[in-house]
Amino acid sequence: MKSNSIEIKNYIKNFSNEFDKEIINFIPKKRFFSNKLFSAMNYVLSVGGKRLRPIFLYEISKLLGAKKKYSLRTAASIEFVHCYSLVHDDLPAMDNDDLRRGHKTCHKKFDDATAILVGDAFQSLAFEIIADKQTHPSSEIRCSLIYELAKSAGSNGMVNGQMLDLEAENKKLNLDQILELQKLKTGELFRFSCIAGCYLAEQKKKIEIFEKFSHNLGIAFQIRDDLLDVEGDQEKLGKKTNKDLNRGKQTLISLLGIDEAKKKSKELIDEAIDFLKPFGKDADRLKNLTYFIISRNK
Amino acid sequence: MKSNSIEIKNYIKNFSNEFDKEIINFIPKKRFFSNKLFSAMNYVLSVGGKRLRPIFLYEISKLLGAKKKYSLRTAASIEFVHCYSLVHDDLPAMDNDDLRRGHKTCHKKFDDATAILVGDAFQSLAFEIIADKQTHPSSEIRCSLIYELAKSAGSNGMVNGQMLDLEAENKKLNLDQILELQKLKTGELFRFSCIAGCYLAEQKKKIEIFEKFSHNLGIAFQIRDDLLDVEGDQEKLGKKTNKDLNRGKQTLISLLGIDEAKKKSKELIDEAIDFLKPFGKDADRLKNLTYFIISRNK
Repeated sequence: MKSNSIEIKNYIKNFSNEFDKEIINFIPKKRFFSNKLFSAMNYVLSVGGKRLRPIFLYEISKLLGAKKKYSLRTAASIEFVHCYSLVHDDLPAMDNDDLRRGHKTCHKKFDDATAILVGDAFQSLAFEIIADKQTHPSSEIRCSLIYELAKSAGSNGMVNGQMLDLEAENKKLNLDQILELQKLKTGELFRFSCIAGCYLAEQKKKIEIFEKFSHNLGIAFQIRDDLLDVEGDQEKLGKKTNKDLNRGKQTLISLLGIDEAKKKSKELIDEAIDFLKPFGKDADRLKNLTYFIISRNK
Repeated sequence: MKSNSIEIKNYIKNFSNEFDKEIINFIPKKRFFSNKLFSAMNYVLSVGGKRLRPIFLYEISKLLGAKKKYSLRTAASIEFVHCYSLVHDDLPAMDNDDLRRGHKTCHKKFDDATAILVGDAFQSLAFEIIADKQTHPSSEIRCSLIYELAKSAGSNGMVNGQMLDLEAENKKLNLDQILELQKLKTGELFRFSCIAGCYLAEQKKKIEIFEKFSHNLGIAFQIRDDLLDVEGDQEKLGKKTNKDLNRGKQTLISLLGIDEAKKKSKELIDEAIDFLKPFGKDADRLKNLTYFIISRNK
């Protein structure tokens, strides 16, 4: 288990190095009388990240037989949606964070207006990439992906999750409400990451199983995130900790307690791994990635 | 000319009444433990607007023979992109406006965080609508529309125009730079509105002519907007005037002077009308709409 953990960490590191080299090419080159927007978009990407959504998208696509080029482009799209949401989320009007991955957040490095526009531009770029023929020869598949991504990201998905999360600071939520919030805020982008490969590899019958898989993955990921906020190392995380507590924000940790929440996330991940049984040894790396979700320390 | 002007004003009013009844249906109904996001999206639409981009999209689509249902759905998308840009643009970090169409701006009615999220949600919704089969049976056409809209809205389009516009407050721009800025900030969404019908009606050969048409339309529209900022009636406009002057922002008016700018916009519109000659009498309403761009007083 220990050696697996090191191996998967290296695998993620190598993937994100390669991925980061690819995605920087999607940012337009200098061409206007001021190129501040492009500089700021480049900055956001240069700060890096774990690229977890892309790696799940890529691994599942590979497992199902999609071409690497197609899945990497689609993975760029989901990462750009994720980037935009972080840049907006960090703004003073939202979470008001100065640090992200140990670097200044976009609005701290530039200014609030630039950060708003950078987020807006990343969202457009995500859809532009998928709509491009290079992402898949079938326009039917590209449209399906765009439809799913827009639904996952929009007002019935991630954006509403952010809204509910802000609302949660003033409300006492029950377990169902917290799960609803987290399904939207975190779960929806994981859902897209896990089902995109079913479209890319033309295996739509597999959508159901990977939706279930992503459901467990999303909650387990969020529990780990909330745990790191309570127990994590601020240095390692590169961002403030105890944010939820300081804001009186309820999480599965505050509702279930640390031990129960850990137990719950272990159960969810075990069940997620079970969904991968039909793929046998082919899914070994994906299984290790799945375990990583609850063992990561940043 | 006077009676034409009244007729076209009524036509726009009737269109926007019908259009507004349609687009409100795209906002999801209550379904989460808080529905603040949906309320705020509804508010933004309820405040209304001239719906100029939608009406140009609709009229050109009709002229080229596209189905009404298809063009109205695509028109909803462009209006949602426009709405998102206004909501973000009004934020304190950007233009800091309290009033829009005589009503409180979104962040004044709700709060900054909600306005950021409302804008984000409108952008996703725009792409979700076009990706939906109901917008056109051909996925090839839907993908082309999405690609064009994403390019027009994104970092090589409107968003960069907003960025350059903010930068312009601290820079002395020449004529070419102002035109570059305005092509992006205003021209790109007009470009999409004017070429969408070429895709919807499967008349891609007409794209070139409607791109040229939209180029003139965009600049003339912006000159009128800048003129209204200088000469307009704050009550009628429902927003502050003299904003550009107060911010030391250069416009075609400040560079050319009022008379020269008016002359320029008249020339642009005359040339735009000339592009419509091949359509004969069928384009009469579109011609009147085009004249309206430089005669409107709000």
